[in-house]
Amino acid sequence: MCAAVVEGSDVYLYHGTGVATMKFKSPPVNSLSLDFITEFCISLEKLENDRTCRGVIFTSAVPKIFSSGLDITEMCGKSTEHYAEFWRAVQEMWLRLYGSNMVTVAAVNGSSPAGGCLIALTCDYRIMVDNPKFSIGLNEAQLGIVAPFWFKDTFVNVVGHRVAERSLQLGSLHPAAEAHKFGLVDELVPEEKLQEKAAAVMAQWLALPDHARQLTKSMMRKAVLDRLVAHREEDIQNFISFISKESIQKSLRMYMEMLKKKKS
Amino acid sequence: MCAAVVEGSDVYLYHGTGVATMKFKSPPVNSLSLDFITEFCISLEKLENDRTCRGVIFTSAVPKIFSSGLDITEMCGKSTEHYAEFWRAVQEMWLRLYGSNMVTVAAVNGSSPAGGCLIALTCDYRIMVDNPKFSIGLNEAQLGIVAPFWFKDTFVNVVGHRVAERSLQLGSLHPAAEAHKFGLVDELVPEEKLQEKAAAVMAQWLALPDHARQLTKSMMRKAVLDRLVAHREEDIQNFISFISKESIQKSLRMYMEMLKKKKS
Amino acid sequence: MCAAVVEGSDVYLYHGTGVATMKFKSPPVNSLSLDFITEFCISLEKLENDRTCRGVIFTSAVPKIFSSGLDITEMCGKSTEHYAEFWRAVQEMWLRLYGSNMVTVAAVNGSSPAGGCLIALTCDYRIMVDNPKFSIGLNEAQLGIVAPFWFKDTFVNVVGHRVAERSLQLGSLHPAAEAHKFGLVDELVPEEKLQEKAAAVMAQWLALPDHARQLTKSMMRKAVLDRLVAHREEDIQNFISFISKESIQKSLRMYMEMLKKKKS
Repeated sequence: MCAAVVEGSDVYLYHGTGVATMKFKSPPVNSLSLDFITEFCISLEKLENDRTCRGVIFTSAVPKIFSSGLDITEMCGKSTEHYAEFWRAVQEMWLRLYGSNMVTVAAVNGSSPAGGCLIALTCDYRIMVDNPKFSIGLNEAQLGIVAPFWFKDTFVNVVGHRVAERSLQLGSLHPAAEAHKFGLVDELVPEEKLQEKAAAVMAQWLALPDHARQLTKSMMRKAVLDRLVAHREEDIQNFISFISKESIQKSLRMYMEMLKKKKS
Repeated sequence: MCAAVVEGSDVYLYHGTGVATMKFKSPPVNSLSLDFITEFCISLEKLENDRTCRGVIFTSAVPKIFSSGLDITEMCGKSTEHYAEFWRAVQEMWLRLYGSNMVTVAAVNGSSPAGGCLIALTCDYRIMVDNPKFSIGLNEAQLGIVAPFWFKDTFVNVVGHRVAERSLQLGSLHPAAEAHKFGLVDELVPEEKLQEKAAAVMAQWLALPDHARQLTKSMMRKAVLDRLVAHREEDIQNFISFISKESIQKSLRMYMEMLKKKKS
Repeated sequence: MCAAVVEGSDVYLYHGTGVATMKFKSPPVNSLSLDFITEFCISLEKLENDRTCRGVIFTSAVPKIFSSGLDITEMCGKSTEHYAEFWRAVQEMWLRLYGSNMVTVAAVNGSSPAGGCLIALTCDYRIMVDNPKFSIGLNEAQLGIVAPFWFKDTFVNVVGHRVAERSLQLGSLHPAAEAHKFGLVDELVPEEKLQEKAAAVMAQWLALPDHARQLTKSMMRKAVLDRLVAHREEDIQNFISFISKESIQKSLRMYMEMLKKKKS
């Protein structure tokens, strides 16, 4: 048994009795900046290499938001080199999460668009607070951008081809109850029961022998993981050429303006 | 904004305010003859190339039938050359529909077996009139023939592998309510609300930026489209050798006899 | 029309009017020993080659159990050669069942874990007795072992990726009602109606022309069947090296001890 508390600027990590909890706390909206993702990957790697740690629960320390997804400022008005570094980090985060040997549980205690939804999708189990104000989905199309193929593959593996096709084309953000209805989240609970439920689910999954569970998980996810590994550099080049287009930059600037106006 | 009315023998086309409506009117049952398909493809190509047109609604001008599917007379007692020409046209229709950059909505106002069901399956969204007398499905097996692999791929993408396996083997025609239950159609409406609903759905899909929606749609459908493109000639040869078998010809003749008796 | 009764030690076979019934009767739990599987494959091959036989119903002659799955004693403390022979037989059974040209119906009249569930999954249709004491699932992970990729492929084809991922990782045994809810079985019936229902379903499937139904079935299952055929020897080697591990042998011995204690 181990117990450790690691506190970073963005990720608060508590680890005891074989299960770690990663709390996102990068106000105001836990956006996935390059710094956040880097710290996230380092924390995850530590846990992965710690043989006493068998599971990790992801949740938010910021009220009403799980994670707002990729930080748009990292994709706007930056250099080609920066885009490459950022996208490689996003890929790395996904590869580590989707391929994790640990049991991963998302305790979604707020809205979770785009990259926030992706984090939840990579987990073994998704529990969401039963609040109609919280929504979740891969809404990239709403911003005029396109989720990469590995976001799509992860989504299809959870909700199936038809639901994914419709939801991705419409850039839908699904209220919690709707997300639960078609399996984007596995379970809804009142906010005050969330951590208790996450711990119970974790215990259920940890009751299985690690090696059998890990081999099974790997068997289920290998095809999709391998696809990105095989096309990683190509995917980075695609991202750079897409995001560098003036029309896309304009779309992102407009979206950020809209967000600012919404706040004030 | 554009407004145009094109009227052919089989396809009535109205196009205004960015959305076209294609009404099938080839009585008695809108069967997909070579002539029909040819005209259909030409109309579709025109719309696709018309930058003012962003969406198309498919519906029927013939009461009680959306489309009865491929015209069996084109597959019975004709020359090898004719079979090749006909099958290439069917492939072309599917490639254009499934790969369309436009938003495509099927407003299914009647029964829709076989190739009629395929047209609906290629659309982005399917609305069907809530009438238990109207049914939809890929019922080829009932006729003693087999849906080609790209009909099957399209079907699996909509309803999943299990439902497709069972429905294709049984050649099932599903009453509207059943089709809705397992996702073969997305929504049921009373007949008098169909066009209004189709327009509302279209508006919802057109609210998204075209380029993001189109790239997303292409990402979802590329694997299945590429498969036919890669095996197109082989698929034509398979069709010819299958349909030329005396046993298949006999099955089709019997089916046509049965249809004639049913009518009289 | 043919009528034949073949009675072996493990498999009771009745065949008349085009439909055979295979009753498993290897008490106490119909475990799939090498002998059982060998006889099963021989019976199946006979039926497959008998042109008067168009369908087969699988059910159990042992109360409360359909089949307990692969016989663990075949995987414990035996020679490498034995493991190879056993695994090749298991593969053979699956290849014959999943690729059968006959209509196959599972009449699941008892619990059906692991390999027992696999037999049901290969069928065209699954009917289960509506008894909350009967459960079904691929629970290999509970034993510390891993279902091979073709068990997984068969499962995904029936229940979809998400349900399969969760169920396989947890090694879940689903009570009949739950199994029905997510499509692992197609229908629940009271025990006294099981054979009647199986016959009715069989009649429905046999109403279709054999050649169209068979070609359709083959089209749906070919990709998954081909994968094992292409990797058969590799899969045997994987099985041998996995099962020969001391840690796995220990897990299996513990599981057998637990079963023995449960009984007494």
